[in-house]
Amino acid sequence: MVKVGIVGASGYTSSELLRFLLSHPEEVKIEILTSQTYAGERIDKVIPNLRGFMDLRFERFDPDEVASRCDIVFLALPHKVAMQFAPPLLERGVRVIDFSADYRLKDVKTYERWYGVEHTSPHLIKRAVYGLPELHREEIKDARLVANPGCYPTGAILAAAPLMRREGIVDRSLVIVDAKTGISGAGRKPSDRTHYPSRTENFEPYNVMAHRHSPEMEQELSLIASEQVLVAFTPHLVPMSRGILSTLYFRMTGAVSTKELLEIYREFYRSEPFIRVLDKGELPSTKAVYGSNFCDIAVLADERTGTVVVMSAIDNLVKGASGQALQNMNLMCGFDERAGLNLAPLMP
Amino acid sequence: MVKVGIVGASGYTSSELLRFLLSHPEEVKIEILTSQTYAGERIDKVIPNLRGFMDLRFERFDPDEVASRCDIVFLALPHKVAMQFAPPLLERGVRVIDFSADYRLKDVKTYERWYGVEHTSPHLIKRAVYGLPELHREEIKDARLVANPGCYPTGAILAAAPLMRREGIVDRSLVIVDAKTGISGAGRKPSDRTHYPSRTENFEPYNVMAHRHSPEMEQELSLIASEQVLVAFTPHLVPMSRGILSTLYFRMTGAVSTKELLEIYREFYRSEPFIRVLDKGELPSTKAVYGSNFCDIAVLADERTGTVVVMSAIDNLVKGASGQALQNMNLMCGFDERAGLNLAPLMP
Amino acid sequence: MVKVGIVGASGYTSSELLRFLLSHPEEVKIEILTSQTYAGERIDKVIPNLRGFMDLRFERFDPDEVASRCDIVFLALPHKVAMQFAPPLLERGVRVIDFSADYRLKDVKTYERWYGVEHTSPHLIKRAVYGLPELHREEIKDARLVANPGCYPTGAILAAAPLMRREGIVDRSLVIVDAKTGISGAGRKPSDRTHYPSRTENFEPYNVMAHRHSPEMEQELSLIASEQVLVAFTPHLVPMSRGILSTLYFRMTGAVSTKELLEIYREFYRSEPFIRVLDKGELPSTKAVYGSNFCDIAVLADERTGTVVVMSAIDNLVKGASGQALQNMNLMCGFDERAGLNLAPLMP
Amino acid sequence: MVKVGIVGASGYTSSELLRFLLSHPEEVKIEILTSQTYAGERIDKVIPNLRGFMDLRFERFDPDEVASRCDIVFLALPHKVAMQFAPPLLERGVRVIDFSADYRLKDVKTYERWYGVEHTSPHLIKRAVYGLPELHREEIKDARLVANPGCYPTGAILAAAPLMRREGIVDRSLVIVDAKTGISGAGRKPSDRTHYPSRTENFEPYNVMAHRHSPEMEQELSLIASEQVLVAFTPHLVPMSRGILSTLYFRMTGAVSTKELLEIYREFYRSEPFIRVLDKGELPSTKAVYGSNFCDIAVLADERTGTVVVMSAIDNLVKGASGQALQNMNLMCGFDERAGLNLAPLMP
Repeated sequence: MVKVGIVGASGYTSSELLRFLLSHPEEVKIEILTSQTYAGERIDKVIPNLRGFMDLRFERFDPDEVASRCDIVFLALPHKVAMQFAPPLLERGVRVIDFSADYRLKDVKTYERWYGVEHTSPHLIKRAVYGLPELHREEIKDARLVANPGCYPTGAILAAAPLMRREGIVDRSLVIVDAKTGISGAGRKPSDRTHYPSRTENFEPYNVMAHRHSPEMEQELSLIASEQVLVAFTPHLVPMSRGILSTLYFRMTGAVSTKELLEIYREFYRSEPFIRVLDKGELPSTKAVYGSNFCDIAVLADERTGTVVVMSAIDNLVKGASGQALQNMNLMCGFDERAGLNLAPLMP
Repeated sequence: MVKVGIVGASGYTSSELLRFLLSHPEEVKIEILTSQTYAGERIDKVIPNLRGFMDLRFERFDPDEVASRCDIVFLALPHKVAMQFAPPLLERGVRVIDFSADYRLKDVKTYERWYGVEHTSPHLIKRAVYGLPELHREEIKDARLVANPGCYPTGAILAAAPLMRREGIVDRSLVIVDAKTGISGAGRKPSDRTHYPSRTENFEPYNVMAHRHSPEMEQELSLIASEQVLVAFTPHLVPMSRGILSTLYFRMTGAVSTKELLEIYREFYRSEPFIRVLDKGELPSTKAVYGSNFCDIAVLADERTGTVVVMSAIDNLVKGASGQALQNMNLMCGFDERAGLNLAPLMP
Repeated sequence: MVKVGIVGASGYTSSELLRFLLSHPEEVKIEILTSQTYAGERIDKVIPNLRGFMDLRFERFDPDEVASRCDIVFLALPHKVAMQFAPPLLERGVRVIDFSADYRLKDVKTYERWYGVEHTSPHLIKRAVYGLPELHREEIKDARLVANPGCYPTGAILAAAPLMRREGIVDRSLVIVDAKTGISGAGRKPSDRTHYPSRTENFEPYNVMAHRHSPEMEQELSLIASEQVLVAFTPHLVPMSRGILSTLYFRMTGAVSTKELLEIYREFYRSEPFIRVLDKGELPSTKAVYGSNFCDIAVLADERTGTVVVMSAIDNLVKGASGQALQNMNLMCGFDERAGLNLAPLMP
Repeated sequence: MVKVGIVGASGYTSSELLRFLLSHPEEVKIEILTSQTYAGERIDKVIPNLRGFMDLRFERFDPDEVASRCDIVFLALPHKVAMQFAPPLLERGVRVIDFSADYRLKDVKTYERWYGVEHTSPHLIKRAVYGLPELHREEIKDARLVANPGCYPTGAILAAAPLMRREGIVDRSLVIVDAKTGISGAGRKPSDRTHYPSRTENFEPYNVMAHRHSPEMEQELSLIASEQVLVAFTPHLVPMSRGILSTLYFRMTGAVSTKELLEIYREFYRSEPFIRVLDKGELPSTKAVYGSNFCDIAVLADERTGTVVVMSAIDNLVKGASGQALQNMNLMCGFDERAGLNLAPLMP
């Protein structure tokens, strides 16, 4: 029996995590859900889709209480906040899966530059494992602190990784990532940008070349490439709730065919339960992964322009957040990695 | 081990049924998927969300073949077509769950008037059970032929039923049903009406007072009321894929409070696994049942205008089609009624 | 030359009003735009679609300043606020078109009951004209204070009016109004309810039988009927930005055909420039009036159930707000009623 | 008095063109609308937003008839079809504005390779003028045959043009164009791809590196650059009706700042009535140009990655089709270039 808690449990990532935990086949018990805003309220009053599934009430966060009742805690908190909640839990022996960016970047200065804040527990950074199972599976199994990847980095890193490992195919010094996200990525808090009339029938870029997920992509891709990789990253807002489609552009440095690229990708992701490398001629769509933990990838070599294009699709709330967190929990607990996540995407 | 087949398996109701069957906890084997259009093709080429889950190929329909391999068959065919496929299967001992309207109406003349076609197997009508478990659970268990209800009738009948059983609350001779559906209700075949640019940022009624689901509602509500009930039914198209929200209006005939109505509804649906009667002050939304088999119901008495309003929300593809069909299969097979369907709705 | 000002000019109704004023063929000068929040900012920084059209800056409201520069002022303010801004302008001789509810209800007690606030200038109510040109054209021409109708009442009153004038067709004591609105009706301020992920793929009712637009409908319909009319009103939220579709249900009291009803409607709206009574078999849709000042109306008699159904479609921001306000201004200034408004709706 | 006709007048580009022609301030008469499918039907039965504006009926195409009644004809026909209709009209002295791709590519072999068909009137190609006023204004004025640009090329060429004219800023040999379009770009004919349930809550690429608009972009950009420019072009489908947002990536070849780039763009488009170069910090969105003929452009230099990003937004049906066609007609007729097009975009 694994007892779990969620800190900051009223948001979208938590509601999505609960959806999966509720159908988890192993002995997993949801012990504590904390929320500052909703402490005392019944969860189904805040997350109405859970009517009839749970009658827990939100509690206030108390590290002793949480530690006495939970083996594993998910921190579904904003960055800057999470680094205040993780240390007391880790000190009390709780294993932590952190949804925020606070422990993702290995270089504390990079973190402080992009996030504009001093890191208050830099000593924990080196103990944290970047929770992308496809790249760090073995370390995740034993981790006490998992830094769950950002949504954009998940889609982009999985799309680029196989090309980064090999020399002589593409210019690895610069990866262009043109990404498009559904609006749930902005969280549950309303704002001008997420106001329905502002978004419907509208498409626009934001944070061009300045999004905080850039250094996260660069860190992981540089690690694979064993050389410095820069990422030119432009995110866009799509009038839909869920899904990220990332389109990556690389300059070929040698002759390569789509068929050869497909072999490289198939080999790289051979045993991965949640990566689906598409057949030649197929392209990913966010709907084909809707509500699921899959990452669909297509790759294509265009000899005419000397360009390699890689496209990936994920559900930002699942493989881009809560599904991946559960995948990490499964690894940490020795469960089947797919437990609770083996659900087909919705169509239509 | 129950062996099942789906006839007409390339559409939305089939893809949704497969999504549930694939996580069904009992020994259920998907044996045959037939499709005239796609015979020979692998299912995941037609239903891409099933990539990695199934590699069956569509087959042509052959009643002997189907009967030799299946215990239960779902007919996911249009009306008029289904009544040609059901008889040969029933004759060969296969139990049939029919998604079409062909066996729903007990009065063959009513069927022929509303559907404008002669019924070719009227002798089967009386053997068919109307597959709304909340009203006909016991008969469904032993049925050889279940007529799975229409999507609109499911939402409207469940909303109205408790009021129909009682005298003295509302005028039962006329029920006004103002229903609003997502576009997936029109099926997978493209048309002017389902063309994306025609639908986005658009809302409109259609088939006003002339929709074929009217007699189905009238049949079932009259049965409960033990008197003739007429339904004034206006369906509307909502720019979304899934969900039906039905708003029903009744004239009060005696003084009744919202609290009393809630008690009537709670009592009526006391043991139902998929009906959620909402608390006073709560209202249903299609998103709170998205992807699930629930029907959420709210009821309200407005003394000022002498009106009772009942609102229900379902996912038209689940409780309005495939989820309900699986619920019926579970009853027919002696399984837990919730098997494969016990999933929380998606939010957001 | 008519000089106009808009008070509270940063919201949707103002941006829409400016769109029309900018292509107004008469001598109309936009003199002052006030905004508490954005005073000092250039309008195209707040309303980016106006880039290249205007370089005015928002000003703070000062009644002397406004009165010295403007002949007519549009108050685009919330109710309760508007009644503080109208009196000083009227005292200074400015004609006022008020978008709020503050001067719509002739009975101050009804206002105070539904809006939960004391009216601070009740003496102005009887001088105010309800700004629905189809019913009050002549009074509007000479009005000093026009109470621009609410969006829902505009659609519902225009749909019901012809039936209210005649005895013996329908039971006029109760009108059921089932209305569906786009989200822009909630204004420009973000909230949980207008958050994009809460609304996309979602449909739900709100304020059932309790919406403040009910007494406005009842006042105007009772006036036409010369007897008390009650309105059972349920509004719903549609995942789209613009448009209101209202479906109204009446009980027939005598035999009437769709053809006869159409004649009554055609006669009633014979010379109206913005009412389009649809042919038999046609139904209104919000897209067919998108961005325009039209109200499309269809009417249908269903003998089988003894029901008359009337449906109307408007753009809530145009005929339901700013277009109607401009129509009122045109009447007040002696311009062609269609000036600036004679634009075809967008399709698709 | 200019007499105009539209051939193939039942589609979206025609309905949009009529919307503008109906409010054109000059003496323009809409003489003939032809349609094979709808010949004999009244236009407002096919394009319901035009109810009350026009009562013309569609006619069959007859070149003599058209030539006898029209000065200018818009061909709103698919490619391959248009090249059968243009020659007889030109021979009879009618000036033609062709929406199709048939006369856009100066090299007939390139046309035949990308479109997979033999060109049946190659002699007309050199007489055709590519109808992008910002690049070919003077030639358009005297043209007898204008090849109205494709929607994607319009957005991409306008975004790239100022960078192509200068040496030493970016590598001009390869332009990466990542474009995102609303679904109306696919026209009015329903298909699997444009089926509402397939598109809502979905985002996907298509025709990657293989879209027929690529050679059109390459032709015009090479012309400006006076060297061969290749375009790596990936289009995507956005769940919305209108709008194209194009994101272009260039490699810097020398140091350049955003400020310097802005000066280059401002200078290049100094007198253009429909180009709005945004201020530093602003980004384009499709909503800010919705329903209008504007092209909004932002440009940004990212020193860190050595990348220049340019983004443009247009309404695909207006600046990307019908608005641009009318802009061309205005030039051809000596009217103010903005006549009929000087309308503010809709917001929200």
